[in-house]
Amino acid sequence: MMMGDDVENGNLGPYLDRPRTFPNMRSKPYTPLIFRILRGINVRVLVILLFLGFGYVFYIGASTSPIIVFVFSVCIVSFLLSIYLTKWVLSKDEGPPEMAQISEAIRDGAEGFFKTQYGTISKMAVLLALVILSIYLFRNTTPQQESSGLGRATSACITVAAFLLGALCSGVAGYVGMWVSVRANVRVSSAARRSAREALQIAVRAGGFSALVVVGMAVIGIAILYATFYVWLGVDSPGSMKVTDLPLLLVGYGFGASFVALFAQLGGGIYTKAADVGADLVGKVEQGIPEDDPRNPAVIADLVGDNVGDCAARGADLFESIAAEIISAMILGGTMAQHCKIEDPSGFILFPLVVHSFDLVVSSIGILSIRGTRDSNVKVPLEDPMTILQKGYSVTIILAVLTFFGSTRWLLYTEQAPSAWLNFSLCGLVGIITAYVFVWITKYYTDYKHEPVRTLALSSSTGHGTNIIAGVSLGLESTAIPVLVISVSIISAFWLGHTSGLVDETGTPTGGLFGTAVATMGMLSTAAYILTMDMFGPIADNAGGIVEMSQQPESVREITDVLDAVGNTTKATTKGFAIGSAALASFLLFSAYMDEVSSFAREPFKQVDIAIPEVFIGGLLGSMLIFLFSAWACAAVGRTAQEVVKEVRRQFIERPGIMDYKEKPDYGRCVAIVASASLREMIKPGALAIVSPIVVGFLFRVLGHYTGHPLLGAKVVAALLMFATVSGILMALFLNTAGGAWDNAKKFIETGALGGKGSESHKAAITGDTVGDPFKDTVGPSLHVLIKMLATITLVMAPVFL
Amino acid sequence: MMMGDDVENGNLGPYLDRPRTFPNMRSKPYTPLIFRILRGINVRVLVILLFLGFGYVFYIGASTSPIIVFVFSVCIVSFLLSIYLTKWVLSKDEGPPEMAQISEAIRDGAEGFFKTQYGTISKMAVLLALVILSIYLFRNTTPQQESSGLGRATSACITVAAFLLGALCSGVAGYVGMWVSVRANVRVSSAARRSAREALQIAVRAGGFSALVVVGMAVIGIAILYATFYVWLGVDSPGSMKVTDLPLLLVGYGFGASFVALFAQLGGGIYTKAADVGADLVGKVEQGIPEDDPRNPAVIADLVGDNVGDCAARGADLFESIAAEIISAMILGGTMAQHCKIEDPSGFILFPLVVHSFDLVVSSIGILSIRGTRDSNVKVPLEDPMTILQKGYSVTIILAVLTFFGSTRWLLYTEQAPSAWLNFSLCGLVGIITAYVFVWITKYYTDYKHEPVRTLALSSSTGHGTNIIAGVSLGLESTAIPVLVISVSIISAFWLGHTSGLVDETGTPTGGLFGTAVATMGMLSTAAYILTMDMFGPIADNAGGIVEMSQQPESVREITDVLDAVGNTTKATTKGFAIGSAALASFLLFSAYMDEVSSFAREPFKQVDIAIPEVFIGGLLGSMLIFLFSAWACAAVGRTAQEVVKEVRRQFIERPGIMDYKEKPDYGRCVAIVASASLREMIKPGALAIVSPIVVGFLFRVLGHYTGHPLLGAKVVAALLMFATVSGILMALFLNTAGGAWDNAKKFIETGALGGKGSESHKAAITGDTVGDPFKDTVGPSLHVLIKMLATITLVMAPVFL
Repeated sequence: MMMGDDVENGNLGPYLDRPRTFPNMRSKPYTPLIFRILRGINVRVLVILLFLGFGYVFYIGASTSPIIVFVFSVCIVSFLLSIYLTKWVLSKDEGPPEMAQISEAIRDGAEGFFKTQYGTISKMAVLLALVILSIYLFRNTTPQQESSGLGRATSACITVAAFLLGALCSGVAGYVGMWVSVRANVRVSSAARRSAREALQIAVRAGGFSALVVVGMAVIGIAILYATFYVWLGVDSPGSMKVTDLPLLLVGYGFGASFVALFAQLGGGIYTKAADVGADLVGKVEQGIPEDDPRNPAVIADLVGDNVGDCAARGADLFESIAAEIISAMILGGTMAQHCKIEDPSGFILFPLVVHSFDLVVSSIGILSIRGTRDSNVKVPLEDPMTILQKGYSVTIILAVLTFFGSTRWLLYTEQAPSAWLNFSLCGLVGIITAYVFVWITKYYTDYKHEPVRTLALSSSTGHGTNIIAGVSLGLESTAIPVLVISVSIISAFWLGHTSGLVDETGTPTGGLFGTAVATMGMLSTAAYILTMDMFGPIADNAGGIVEMSQQPESVREITDVLDAVGNTTKATTKGFAIGSAALASFLLFSAYMDEVSSFAREPFKQVDIAIPEVFIGGLLGSMLIFLFSAWACAAVGRTAQEVVKEVRRQFIERPGIMDYKEKPDYGRCVAIVASASLREMIKPGALAIVSPIVVGFLFRVLGHYTGHPLLGAKVVAALLMFATVSGILMALFLNTAGGAWDNAKKFIETGALGGKGSESHKAAITGDTVGDPFKDTVGPSLHVLIKMLATITLVMAPVFL
Repeated sequence: MMMGDDVENGNLGPYLDRPRTFPNMRSKPYTPLIFRILRGINVRVLVILLFLGFGYVFYIGASTSPIIVFVFSVCIVSFLLSIYLTKWVLSKDEGPPEMAQISEAIRDGAEGFFKTQYGTISKMAVLLALVILSIYLFRNTTPQQESSGLGRATSACITVAAFLLGALCSGVAGYVGMWVSVRANVRVSSAARRSAREALQIAVRAGGFSALVVVGMAVIGIAILYATFYVWLGVDSPGSMKVTDLPLLLVGYGFGASFVALFAQLGGGIYTKAADVGADLVGKVEQGIPEDDPRNPAVIADLVGDNVGDCAARGADLFESIAAEIISAMILGGTMAQHCKIEDPSGFILFPLVVHSFDLVVSSIGILSIRGTRDSNVKVPLEDPMTILQKGYSVTIILAVLTFFGSTRWLLYTEQAPSAWLNFSLCGLVGIITAYVFVWITKYYTDYKHEPVRTLALSSSTGHGTNIIAGVSLGLESTAIPVLVISVSIISAFWLGHTSGLVDETGTPTGGLFGTAVATMGMLSTAAYILTMDMFGPIADNAGGIVEMSQQPESVREITDVLDAVGNTTKATTKGFAIGSAALASFLLFSAYMDEVSSFAREPFKQVDIAIPEVFIGGLLGSMLIFLFSAWACAAVGRTAQEVVKEVRRQFIERPGIMDYKEKPDYGRCVAIVASASLREMIKPGALAIVSPIVVGFLFRVLGHYTGHPLLGAKVVAALLMFATVSGILMALFLNTAGGAWDNAKKFIETGALGGKGSESHKAAITGDTVGDPFKDTVGPSLHVLIKMLATITLVMAPVFL
């Protein structure tokens, strides 16, 4: 009790005897333009504007379909809930001044980087928008477009507008994730001085806020676009577009989202790991000071990295996953509905939006189910936070299954095939089970409770070399079971859909692909909760850093350490989830690409024949693209880390007083160096990913033109996409798992096994961890985004290849 | 002069003051059964048998085609030449007794392992032969077979006989490679005491011997099979088989060869690197004794490893490459000749055999062009051995181009398309240039004269972790240019063939695939010389080990060190060559597979549609197979190395006298441990490679049967094969280059750069080298063999999938 009060009042007694932190860490604060404009507007005007906006949204929603109205309502309610969550989090105290100072320094660094990074990204996005515009103005129109009177100019504007909106929303998703994490971190640290349970609750609610915003924005963005196009183009009225063709107009949104997510993940991933590796190499290894020690000049950069690399980038990543998956499922639903001549196809098209609306509802319940103790003054014994999070997940998943069955019955019931909805709910169940199994497999390979990580730790005892060999083979091996699981779930979902009873005019079953799409939705039906658990990790990590830097007592550190360890596990498992859903989503987008090509080429495009030499080469180039992209992303971290190492070494030499807390390290310089280096380094791999499919497609189109092979470009790109997807999935699984396993093998040794901290085994394990850092936090997650970006870019750029 | 004489007479003065080696290193010698039988036969009987054999061979040759007679003659001449070479090598002295003793210990270890390994492999081969027999006895017959009256029993016997012959020849190829290297190594060491040039010449001629035997045996084996089947089945007489269908009967030979090569490479690769890593970890790192020091209990195992891992395995590997490539080119030539209704198709079918006959001729000239100085008593200044080898290569390559043009004019001239032969010779030129460029790229990425390895070495200065990160990204990046080169050469060869003027009945150009086949032959048209350079490496390496172990003077070591360094470069570059030709050969075998499936299924099988979910899954499984195989092979080295580490540590503890040369280490125990462990460990990855395509094909065949999708099994296997090929090529390039670069980065630091030997950078570089060892010498080369084995197994097992 006493100690708790002392801490509350900032009276730390002997802990403040000597200066252990440095004042004035912050540079100038930064607020993005849009927030400044919003703040500048009179509140009443704002309220009126908001109401007008809502009015418009509900008007177009009501003109389109009652389903859209439902989706809008759920999204708005969840935005209101997220406002409640953020108010709740912000109402918590920021702790003693030294904590607040550190937090402010982190906030400034993160916001500064975000500003520059998104400045660069938005310039590139505008450039790309112009390229898309010019391509669409000169492309051929499809028969559908002609029949619906959709001119080139309209179609170009639609695609560009969707692209820009997608990019903007993706950017906002990233910003929101970072915004809340740089504010929640210090509140979690402060709460950790009182109660573990409260700290956990703050971290979860902060993560929940951004998860709800990210998912809600993906859903409402697509819904608004859909409804606007529906009303604007007079869909379904005679002589205009059919509703089943509408979803294809949305692909620009997905591309915009994945474009921003790719650069956000690359820049953020390079930033966070370069700072981490650089800080550790000099601080921990050379100077022997602990992690997150205030004397390390790169410590603020490291803590900033957690926010820009994990929170901002993962927000953009999940946003993009959900958007891509919703759009591809809408396209497939529309195509199937058209083939089967279903009277009211809107249920099949809008199904994904409803699934994610329910996702918002059930995840909110899951998030709110994690509560602090009633009486926050009573210290409760530390319950395993993982158990608490798992309980919340179980609640969410049970509700998700129920609502999934409900929504299939509501939207996918058709008199043509009365039992189809049941088949599709089973597809959803397949997806949910797949997600569960994926999480379990990742845990098996990365948790030190199980065999693989223990064997890896054991191999550290024979040296650095054997540790790396064992880690590489562990990572390579860990790709096998996930691939088998994906295979089984694709086949079973396909056959469930195939046998649903939905047939086209000729009596051929057509529901197979849509079944796979429903399984993907099942997998993502708890996305908001998963994202919450994912965001929890970096917030807890940062809170631990702040506690360490502000030199809090041991008991506080223990609490944040436990939270941090749980965060590491949730981070690793959500990566397995992300790559699984990326695999399924890419497969769907691939089918959408083939539909798109058929409609442009005015001939069926159903086969990609890998026995043609050019197509084989396309595949070879696709796989190579993954290897080269990984190489460049990995090398970028290495180079940037070396810059950090040099700067930190320089500061320790030039300011010898740092080690005795007599001189203040120049945190800002490290932040600036990492920021500018990672912005520079993200361009090369990012540009490679965007330019290569376009160049390959165009070159082979020209070659095909001269050799009398009309669809060559499109076919080669299809092979490139398919091989890149497969290689990308495997490479990402390998890198994520190897990285996670190395990290936990080190942690296992730090628990005292095999000689414990400071032993030779520990040194070898640290080498493994250093290697694993860029694997699991830069290259792996970038590959998730890359494979979806490739799928959307080929969809949008299809006119170039034809 | 004086010193040279001293050395000659074994009078080493102060070098023998204290015992530096241990006597009686050898266990009991071993001669394989077949040699013992041969020795037991009376010489006259042997000569008569030989003449009878020759008579039979020439009789069937003459009944088939004059081209076959030409091929036979060249092969027999080159066998005679190889006997001359081996006699020349064996006539050299074995040096002082301590050298001979070490050499005998190595020989015993290598032959002992060979015996056990090939005992295991032959048991598996017989088992597999029975499986093939039963499959072929119950399979459907093709229309061609029915029309030619080729019954099931005959076709089963043919396939099994071809398989067993291929396996036997592959085994002999491996044995020959090892046989000569364990005899040449000590002669090279001994010659190094006299003259660098003579040592070089012995190593080259020993390598040349096995290269000529390996290539000659691949050619003559196929030629004998072809001629025997031709005569036996009465090909081209009315009512029997057409000559254009004959090559398909040979695929069993290719499968047998690749089956044995896979296990030889796996077992040998695990052996050599486990011994190497184990010996280094305790000897170099823990005890601080030099490499190849006689006090290290694992040193003999390490030297044995060079022979069984590099010589024997590489002999089997190249044998299998050439066999697979000849057979696939013959199949494609036959198919094309049939489509184009060429009157005498034998030129197109037998072209690959002729190309490799000329390969034997021109490579022999190249090998013989490397001569010792005339007066061996005069010491000449040390010329760079790499330059000498390069000169020989230039001679070979110029002659190869000339003979290639000659053979295309001779065999591929047809009145239907008078200029076709010229197009095909240009295809050959494309192949030769590709080989050259590949060698150059590998050198660029692995030689420390160039940027990449220097950057890698620099990254060692910031620690073990950054060294590994940089090496991984270097390896991943190095896949890009080779892929672009392969792409360009496949496309250009395809279009040269396509525009050759050869058209089928409907006027469609059909020469494209054959053009690619000719390019592959061009690439392999100097295979015997390449193999010589490759064999040179381990012989020089071993010679260096013997010199080190027998404690020769510094000047002798300098000579073997130079030869060893050159050997490392040639080994690395021939790996690039091997993977390039594997990529092209697999592409050809893939086409052959589709032809085979069409003829079984009695319907055209021209397309593998990767948009079907099951086919996509096949691809996913194919890529996964590569990852899992690599994981298991890599882990096998790690586990075996740990066993070696334990044993060596045990010996140092239990026999403290070893360090002072007072007690003899138990070399035999290390040899036995590595041998039994690597035999055990080779089974799991090998079985995976063989079983998975069969299981996948069969499962999807059953699934296809129940879902009304007749060719599903064959399609899924095709996708598996294609994706495995692409992933395998990239993975092998990555592993080979990363391993080579790490090795040379360490060597670069050892030249004194970045702190030189013993510095922190050097330690980090050693970690990289340890990681690179299994990458470049176990997993990478096994992947070369694996992708070709997959291509031949799917061909032979095609009936299972239909």
